[in-house]
Amino acid sequence: MLRTICRETGRADLQSLPITRKFYPMNFTQRVRTVQRSSNSLLCIGLDTDINSIPRFLHTHVDPVFEFNRRIIEATKDLVCAYKLNLAFYEALGENTWYTVHQTLAAIPEELLTIGDAKRGDIGNSSEMYAKLLMHDYEFTATTIHPYMGFDSIVPFLKNPAQGVFVLAVTSNPGARDFQYLPVRGKPLYEQIIRKVRTWNAKKNCGLVVGATRPKEIRRVRTLAPDLPLLIPGVGAQGGDLKAAVRYGCDAKGELALVNLSRSILYASHGEDFAAAARASATAIRDDINRYRTQFFSPRR
Amino acid sequence: MLRTICRETGRADLQSLPITRKFYPMNFTQRVRTVQRSSNSLLCIGLDTDINSIPRFLHTHVDPVFEFNRRIIEATKDLVCAYKLNLAFYEALGENTWYTVHQTLAAIPEELLTIGDAKRGDIGNSSEMYAKLLMHDYEFTATTIHPYMGFDSIVPFLKNPAQGVFVLAVTSNPGARDFQYLPVRGKPLYEQIIRKVRTWNAKKNCGLVVGATRPKEIRRVRTLAPDLPLLIPGVGAQGGDLKAAVRYGCDAKGELALVNLSRSILYASHGEDFAAAARASATAIRDDINRYRTQFFSPRR
Repeated sequence: MLRTICRETGRADLQSLPITRKFYPMNFTQRVRTVQRSSNSLLCIGLDTDINSIPRFLHTHVDPVFEFNRRIIEATKDLVCAYKLNLAFYEALGENTWYTVHQTLAAIPEELLTIGDAKRGDIGNSSEMYAKLLMHDYEFTATTIHPYMGFDSIVPFLKNPAQGVFVLAVTSNPGARDFQYLPVRGKPLYEQIIRKVRTWNAKKNCGLVVGATRPKEIRRVRTLAPDLPLLIPGVGAQGGDLKAAVRYGCDAKGELALVNLSRSILYASHGEDFAAAARASATAIRDDINRYRTQFFSPRR
Repeated sequence: MLRTICRETGRADLQSLPITRKFYPMNFTQRVRTVQRSSNSLLCIGLDTDINSIPRFLHTHVDPVFEFNRRIIEATKDLVCAYKLNLAFYEALGENTWYTVHQTLAAIPEELLTIGDAKRGDIGNSSEMYAKLLMHDYEFTATTIHPYMGFDSIVPFLKNPAQGVFVLAVTSNPGARDFQYLPVRGKPLYEQIIRKVRTWNAKKNCGLVVGATRPKEIRRVRTLAPDLPLLIPGVGAQGGDLKAAVRYGCDAKGELALVNLSRSILYASHGEDFAAAARASATAIRDDINRYRTQFFSPRR
């Protein structure tokens, strides 16, 4: 990942160091567990930064979205295990996409996880190209993936055991009902996906996405995949149940659930105090999560 | 769409005209039919332009991928109904993505269709953001979409009846077998998707993707969706059957199939004559397609 920013222009410094490929002595699942222990947090903040929703006064900056992200990260980095960048919001920036993503990633401490929420899924050589951008250029720790095109659409993202994928299983939106619950051999379709993903997990770098609006399904997914990291979006603005996400989403050790919140933290205030308000909101949620972990799981380690 | 390029820098001219939103007096399905008639072609060229596969001598240009595309388009624009840009290849360009896509689109004659092969699929506000880029900024005539997240993931792309979506039904890759054929109430999953897409087609701007490597399924899809445009990739490098794609993919009038070829046209030659070789290859395929249309369908109109 390009971690260097030009001081004069405030942009990613392309002439600086070559892209580094760090050696991680552990697989993705182990990385999730390790970061969750060192940060004492299962909270993932979704940087779904909408340029139209950030405080007005930031619009004087060269890159308002980056400036917003930088201040949110600075205010919350000791409270989270991960940041998730929803690529939809960055691609909508047009010509600035690549710089803003790189700058935001450069502002995230190296020891935390970064998730590229890109929901890609394409065949062979196209999938290689998406993986090139997300896993090599941006160097996200993990990305989200559509399952529909099957195994070969996912292979390019699984090459490095230290980097992972979260395959969509049960999503938090109303349209999830259209296909995800269709009966296949007496079970909902999403269970077939989970079964397949488990067979793809030879390098221990596969995870699943399960919406927090569906506590029953979180429980079922955790039963079917006891040792996979689960990315759980939908708490907060979408109305998902935090307690159920922790209770049913964690593994037996009270870990491996990544509870994602976006809007309720990012836009806790629309004033000059937005970063402090985000910190207060994130602290409350991190603490709630940890209280539920204490309640439902025996002490770790 | 930004159709103006700065002559000095060779880049999209942002200070030029505001983005225009043209009024098309027909829906997407009618547009496909109209363009296929006026061009007398069902051929779609996939601009899956890989910077590592284009002729070496183009690398002296400021934007080699654009220069390659420009020459391919110039050499083939009277032979096709559409160009399809595979976004995976453009996103891999990093900081140049947005400019190269805009420049390439600016080089395509206004009267032809442009397909943004992005295979997106996300919920509510994220999907709005992807639609903003693909349908408003790039202003593609159509984009490709993953079905798994259901109707609300697709709605933002269907707003303008003149712009459409091609929903993935049966894909050309080996991994298609993982999920697309799973039995749901005695039928393969992809049939459920087709049934749903038909209910989403109130504005006549929905189509389907069916891989040319699967002639039996093309026939079945056309039976289930007699009036939907079908995007059929996989002829050529992937080994799909051109004759079957035309015979089974066309509607009753011998239209509404968009037969996509990429590598076998783009890289027909790796020398200075690459554009002429692409023209020769595209001419042969266009003519083959039209011969099969004459063979299997009664004269149009």
